[in-house]
Amino acid sequence: MQKVYGDTASGNCYKVKLLLEQLQLPYTWVAIDILKKESRTPEFLQKNPSGQIPLLEIEPGAYLPESNAILHYLADGSNFLPKDPLEHAQVLRWMFWEQYSHEPNVASARFIVRYLGNPPEHAQTLKRRIADGHLALQLMERHLERERYFAGGRYTIADISLYAYTHVAEEGGISLTPYPSIRRWLDAVRAQANHVGM
Amino acid sequence: MQKVYGDTASGNCYKVKLLLEQLQLPYTWVAIDILKKESRTPEFLQKNPSGQIPLLEIEPGAYLPESNAILHYLADGSNFLPKDPLEHAQVLRWMFWEQYSHEPNVASARFIVRYLGNPPEHAQTLKRRIADGHLALQLMERHLERERYFAGGRYTIADISLYAYTHVAEEGGISLTPYPSIRRWLDAVRAQANHVGM
Repeated sequence: MQKVYGDTASGNCYKVKLLLEQLQLPYTWVAIDILKKESRTPEFLQKNPSGQIPLLEIEPGAYLPESNAILHYLADGSNFLPKDPLEHAQVLRWMFWEQYSHEPNVASARFIVRYLGNPPEHAQTLKRRIADGHLALQLMERHLERERYFAGGRYTIADISLYAYTHVAEEGGISLTPYPSIRRWLDAVRAQANHVGM
Repeated sequence: MQKVYGDTASGNCYKVKLLLEQLQLPYTWVAIDILKKESRTPEFLQKNPSGQIPLLEIEPGAYLPESNAILHYLADGSNFLPKDPLEHAQVLRWMFWEQYSHEPNVASARFIVRYLGNPPEHAQTLKRRIADGHLALQLMERHLERERYFAGGRYTIADISLYAYTHVAEEGGISLTPYPSIRRWLDAVRAQANHVGM
């Protein structure tokens, strides 16, 4: 059985949990507390030298890190990942965009507020993350004004990837009020079969 | 014929050029100067709302952004992307890692030095990018001490993705001297058939 090393309050880990539930695949969850540096122990670094979660143990000794690589691996061949080359490419395009332009801002703002307790020495960084987080949300809003989902005209792992931190953006001080199309899309994601919360 | 909007001095754009040459596919190159804000004109933003290059025009009106999504799209079905699900997953794992943990440091350091002329107001940021860039290179070095390439035991788009900014890391003040395995791997990449420089 597949094993996930993760933290259910981390959006990157939650992505994997949500997809496993929607694929109705059996799995074991191994709780890792990054604040207690449990992802930096010599034992964990043997499994994933980058010291990051989530980490998928496919079989004993075979590990796959990087949340979006895990989503792609698990979803391949299912309805959550289009086979059409162009649609498939657009799914990956949004997932790379998520890790480069969305997560470093939207997730980082939330990390500073929720995990670090919003300390004054991070105030400047937080301000920048919130501003850049809004730029990312504005791009999503413009896309969702025209499209129901991010790629292939249906719910895919691109939506799971972007839902993970978008739906808790306000925990980092990034208001979703200016984004009606994003809020409509969040509802559409929540209405999918076998949806589970964070 | 496919069209690439890009800047040959950008590592992200060079990735696409290198793969197209190695696949021996015909393409047109449209030079975009980001310092002249040519990726932010209303006309370009119509093509790619995120205002980033590279951008692949697959056919008139069909655009694909995100360098690593472009590599995956172009390489699918070729020798540069393993079909085995686990090997395929490891290729994507390294490509997501590249965009999250490598490019924002190694490419950003080079951008500050080479494009911005290393101004004093960026000195603190540059210092941090160089330090975090070394962390990324240390992880690559440890992997390459045991493996010839990044995934699947052979040259893949994971190598192209990581080669792009690693081979010019020194332009950003990140020395490659401490990394003999990376230097051996850079030579192995350069020795591939149809290799072209940046």
